[in-house]
Amino acid sequence: MKTIENISRMTTFVKMMKKEGRSIGLVPTMGCLHEGHMSLVRAAKKHTDVVVMSIFVNPIQFGPKEDFEKYPRDLKRDEELARDAGVDVIFYPSLKDMYPEGYATYVTIEALTKNLCGGSRPGHFSGVATVVTKLFNIVKPNIAYFGQKDMQQALMIKKMAADLNMDLEVKIMPTVRGKGGLAMSSRNMYLSETESKDAVILHQSLKQAESLIKGQERDAKKIIKTIEDMIKSKPTAKIDYVAIVDTKELRDVKTISGEIMIALAVFFGNTRLIDNITIAVK
Amino acid sequence: MKTIENISRMTTFVKMMKKEGRSIGLVPTMGCLHEGHMSLVRAAKKHTDVVVMSIFVNPIQFGPKEDFEKYPRDLKRDEELARDAGVDVIFYPSLKDMYPEGYATYVTIEALTKNLCGGSRPGHFSGVATVVTKLFNIVKPNIAYFGQKDMQQALMIKKMAADLNMDLEVKIMPTVRGKGGLAMSSRNMYLSETESKDAVILHQSLKQAESLIKGQERDAKKIIKTIEDMIKSKPTAKIDYVAIVDTKELRDVKTISGEIMIALAVFFGNTRLIDNITIAVK
Repeated sequence: MKTIENISRMTTFVKMMKKEGRSIGLVPTMGCLHEGHMSLVRAAKKHTDVVVMSIFVNPIQFGPKEDFEKYPRDLKRDEELARDAGVDVIFYPSLKDMYPEGYATYVTIEALTKNLCGGSRPGHFSGVATVVTKLFNIVKPNIAYFGQKDMQQALMIKKMAADLNMDLEVKIMPTVRGKGGLAMSSRNMYLSETESKDAVILHQSLKQAESLIKGQERDAKKIIKTIEDMIKSKPTAKIDYVAIVDTKELRDVKTISGEIMIALAVFFGNTRLIDNITIAVK
Repeated sequence: MKTIENISRMTTFVKMMKKEGRSIGLVPTMGCLHEGHMSLVRAAKKHTDVVVMSIFVNPIQFGPKEDFEKYPRDLKRDEELARDAGVDVIFYPSLKDMYPEGYATYVTIEALTKNLCGGSRPGHFSGVATVVTKLFNIVKPNIAYFGQKDMQQALMIKKMAADLNMDLEVKIMPTVRGKGGLAMSSRNMYLSETESKDAVILHQSLKQAESLIKGQERDAKKIIKTIEDMIKSKPTAKIDYVAIVDTKELRDVKTISGEIMIALAVFFGNTRLIDNITIAVK
């Protein structure tokens, strides 16, 4: 495995791979790797010849009061995990290389991004779309991998790739969960022991919602109320949103039908966690 | 020469060319071809193996009160001119193929686009940046060609390509002028005979400004005043803007120094024409 620390060297490497006819899989990350990232790498290894993992904490997707500065960074540890998982190249560009002085170009997606995290984090998705466009143009992947935990992000990137005629496939892989079903996230490491225990309620409440739907409950409001009540029972939890949306346009639904997503964002102390499940109803 | 009328067939063609190791030159146009476009084709033929000309009247770069509906379209005539100039492929996608229902992704450049035409035509440059990004992703040119007549557009596209790490070169070619120095433009065909005669003042006033600068005039205000007075002497002319800006950030300058651009937009009747010259001062 090699680590490439600047864009022009990455471009040279990609040109060489393309010349040799090798397909490229890209796993974009902000580092602080966990089992969720590893599952993306394993998928990429199955489908493509060369697996590139980008590690870049992208400032323009953080709000002014968010955790850009304190976001965990540990390249040494990430390199070890990436090597073990079979990554071929870590792309680790500097801030200055990605956003030189006078940087001015942004990609925005006007669909899918108003609701859910788009409502709570203005500008966030434009920051993501912009950095992902840059990474796609530099790494030129045949397939790029995103986790379902960030479903809104993944759907938005699929939409962007289609709208802008990007020549690649976007694959969304299942959420990987840890103890008690807590979705893997780099931000889990911010949690205190109590918060960690409380956070398990996210998955539990989603599962409870699922069984309500299996029991023929179709009223979105009632299901949301059940989830909220469960979460509120945890003293360290503060709800940002709980929503039930269709999976096409991510708009709130009143009645469960077709394929829907139950998505939520909840603070535990200062740490904001998200999770979701999708359910198809006949 | 062949005309390809949809995106997926264009993609297939491009893949074939890339496989054969042939370089691609792209001349993006809105059709209604004139000698300006032809000069771009000739440059592309010199530098690249396969010359693709796109013809697409892009609705999202027109304002609600602008001339999208009446913009001249004549594919037959354009095909003849393109064939004569040596174009290999005309890419002529439909509106529905480029912007299917629910289209939602836009590229914006926050530098270079506030002043000049960006001030007069809000949203225009985002529309241009978006369609050009799509064309770049579909045609994958090694070099793309733009005319200096639309200098602000050309500089913005250069900036966008650099910012988003697009793997191509943007070349800006000199303005081609017709009778009396009138810059070639598809919109010239809207002009009445009187307006046509009056419009020659644009080039004349720019040349007059140039000789003032050669005669050591350095006061931008005075130079602008001279240009405006000349244009106002024509009864069919109505000035949109006359500006002198640096060529790096396109910001108004007070004193002529370094490389500057004198740019103007003037209505003749309902027809808005633009022109510019760049001048380097020691």
